[in-house]
Amino acid sequence: MSPTPEPAQAFRAIDVIRKKRDGGEMSSGEIESLVNAYTRGDIPDYQVSAWLMAVVLKGMTRAETAALTDAMLHSGEVLDLSSLPGRKVDKHSTGGVGDKTSLVLAPLAAAAGVAVPMISGRGLGHTGGTLDKLEAIPGFNVNLSVAQFRRVLETCGCAMIGQTAEIAPADRKLYALRDVTGTVESPYLICASIMSKKLAEGIDALVLDVKTGSGAFMKSDKDAGFLADLMVETGERMGKQVVALITDMDQPLGCMVGNALEVVEVLQVLRGEGPQDLRQLCLELAGWMLHLGGISDSVEAGKKQSEKLIASGKALERFRQMVELQGGDPRAIDDPEKLPQAGHSTILSSPSSGYVASLQCEQVGTACVILGGGRERKEDSVDPAVGIVLHKKVGDAVSPGEPLATIYYNAENKAQHARQLLQQSFQIADSPREKRPLIHRVIGRVMGKSGDKN
Amino acid sequence: MSPTPEPAQAFRAIDVIRKKRDGGEMSSGEIESLVNAYTRGDIPDYQVSAWLMAVVLKGMTRAETAALTDAMLHSGEVLDLSSLPGRKVDKHSTGGVGDKTSLVLAPLAAAAGVAVPMISGRGLGHTGGTLDKLEAIPGFNVNLSVAQFRRVLETCGCAMIGQTAEIAPADRKLYALRDVTGTVESPYLICASIMSKKLAEGIDALVLDVKTGSGAFMKSDKDAGFLADLMVETGERMGKQVVALITDMDQPLGCMVGNALEVVEVLQVLRGEGPQDLRQLCLELAGWMLHLGGISDSVEAGKKQSEKLIASGKALERFRQMVELQGGDPRAIDDPEKLPQAGHSTILSSPSSGYVASLQCEQVGTACVILGGGRERKEDSVDPAVGIVLHKKVGDAVSPGEPLATIYYNAENKAQHARQLLQQSFQIADSPREKRPLIHRVIGRVMGKSGDKN
Repeated sequence: MSPTPEPAQAFRAIDVIRKKRDGGEMSSGEIESLVNAYTRGDIPDYQVSAWLMAVVLKGMTRAETAALTDAMLHSGEVLDLSSLPGRKVDKHSTGGVGDKTSLVLAPLAAAAGVAVPMISGRGLGHTGGTLDKLEAIPGFNVNLSVAQFRRVLETCGCAMIGQTAEIAPADRKLYALRDVTGTVESPYLICASIMSKKLAEGIDALVLDVKTGSGAFMKSDKDAGFLADLMVETGERMGKQVVALITDMDQPLGCMVGNALEVVEVLQVLRGEGPQDLRQLCLELAGWMLHLGGISDSVEAGKKQSEKLIASGKALERFRQMVELQGGDPRAIDDPEKLPQAGHSTILSSPSSGYVASLQCEQVGTACVILGGGRERKEDSVDPAVGIVLHKKVGDAVSPGEPLATIYYNAENKAQHARQLLQQSFQIADSPREKRPLIHRVIGRVMGKSGDKN
Repeated sequence: MSPTPEPAQAFRAIDVIRKKRDGGEMSSGEIESLVNAYTRGDIPDYQVSAWLMAVVLKGMTRAETAALTDAMLHSGEVLDLSSLPGRKVDKHSTGGVGDKTSLVLAPLAAAAGVAVPMISGRGLGHTGGTLDKLEAIPGFNVNLSVAQFRRVLETCGCAMIGQTAEIAPADRKLYALRDVTGTVESPYLICASIMSKKLAEGIDALVLDVKTGSGAFMKSDKDAGFLADLMVETGERMGKQVVALITDMDQPLGCMVGNALEVVEVLQVLRGEGPQDLRQLCLELAGWMLHLGGISDSVEAGKKQSEKLIASGKALERFRQMVELQGGDPRAIDDPEKLPQAGHSTILSSPSSGYVASLQCEQVGTACVILGGGRERKEDSVDPAVGIVLHKKVGDAVSPGEPLATIYYNAENKAQHARQLLQQSFQIADSPREKRPLIHRVIGRVMGKSGDKN
């Protein structure tokens, strides 16, 4: 239906919707106008949701993706941290189960001299959220103003907060609409959402941890690689150093799932203990952060330095400092009994002998949500004490009756539902299967040996 | 993003959006729930527009299309005309320029004994609308209640009104949303919109005139055929006899474009005069209406009978009767000077000698809209007097300075703009080109010789 010709005129949302519907490429001006008009409230939700669906089904070019990221980034405040010494580097994970690396990495990289201004999210679907984990520490405040955030960052080299109203308001509005219109699942929109928020932090470089497997949003390695590549290129188009690690989320990371429990495991790693997979991933990501932060000549050197900072207790000390600066009770660092404790626990035992062949990761995450450790609805509150401790993981030998997991709970009916799910998630086989690698591959340009210090 | 499992529950719009987005087939129950909830106001526009865009880009199966038509049809009142004798048959055109056949066909078929309960629309984009043409007759009221509509139909065998609030309210709400979200252009949605309204008229059979060419919404014969086939099958799935004629709209139909002017041309045809193409199409469509209406054994017989009803003056008499019953001034039938007259006219002359090679049909329609004969915005009023009379059509020989068209106008600046467009729309070539056929093909099951009288 061709409209009657009209004189050259202002931006019309309908033209951009039609263009994307028909597979055309939007100009950066059109994208900027759309995002700004929507953020201002000048375009109704129903036009933007139609456009979002067209983007989901028709995709975007790299230039469009970068333009959308840029428009969302500049819809709000972009922090200027240039007065702080050194390079600012953040890490972002696309979300998984038992992924508590952010709580290790921020103080660890800060202890090495990298500034880490980390703005994180809450649990989404079956995955946990950094903010929910931090709030398991009594008193910890993730709702700092930008000025408070900056003060904590200046004092201890890292700070961890939630998205503020000032940062990328377009993303907040778009995300709420995507959530209810079936338009979340687009790598282009996911990329723009993540990158706009991260780049608003005023960082120089970013390490992305893109999860793949049964507990990740990107189930296949191909999809994870596509998203990783998109985010790396988008970051580079915007003048930032970005590297993406494709890492395994086919089973939970570490052994603990649940907010307070995950803080316990974070403290283990910061003490040089904890499960091997979690330690390995933390060191790998820290190695990249230190390298991109200009502290280490290579990723390998960054890993070695990180190990030393853990062994010397400096990383743990930095964590304690951040907890105190953000209002948290530092006694919880030394005495995990000070963290919220569930009222009850129950053990799930192996029904047979053999080897754990797989551990359906999304089901484990969902079991934790059911216990109250995540939200079924946005307005739900989270029970920080509940969760699951896995005693066996993929590849481990089990005998009949041997504990597979312990469920920590506060409500009997929820525990039963979670136990059912957890039971289904363990598959026991007669012989051991080959384990998937923890780090599948790295996407991004490898820098020269000397790094890019400033 | 998989939501946490929830107990079996009521219809959720998000599930249907996701299903269609991923190319799945919706059940008739899901479609009915969606349409009903939206009509009631229980689902927001932004969810439905995302769903509409998914339908535009992913399409629908024949079963889904029929289910959508059925749900929209039953969102409001379905007329029960079973107390009226004879079969009820309507004709619907997908819209064109100069297409005034409805005004000829309703009284013509009624004069033959077919009941024609016709609910029509207004001009859309560059195309004219039956209601706007009828309203060019002083006093003619297209806004009858259902009871009044039924009385006119009982008295003279035909009645012509606009969509009432009671008929297919889901279509009205959906169409308004499609119009502003770039989701008009889907054969599935177009089919459901047309067929739900037509089947709500309580008809037994329907003749569809699906236009193709530069002045049609379906520019290509392939697209027109696809839509025609879809509508025929949808009608048959709902137990109606439906036939579709694919007819040419590569140049305007007849010679007059503009509301009052088109009434003049209708009166010519009803008097056995008027341009050949318009007469031919009217007779062809009438032949099908009489045949499907059980009056004639064949389409050919229906055409012959229609010619007789015109020659005898009975068709014109029926038109006069309907005009009077709907409040129109019957003097306009005998004296076209009683119809609205434009204040000014200007002639467009041929710049060269040769043959009219093409006549860009959409541009002619747009020129009429610019004169005020159509709406640029929904809330605009229409000037019934303005319009264009074509003196030359495709294939006609022209000499330099010979009139190509006369523009009837009420505002000088609009006339200039329209003249420009009209000038561009005529292409003059050195030699005559082969003319496109008026009727491209017929889609639908051909009935047995005896028809299907009841």
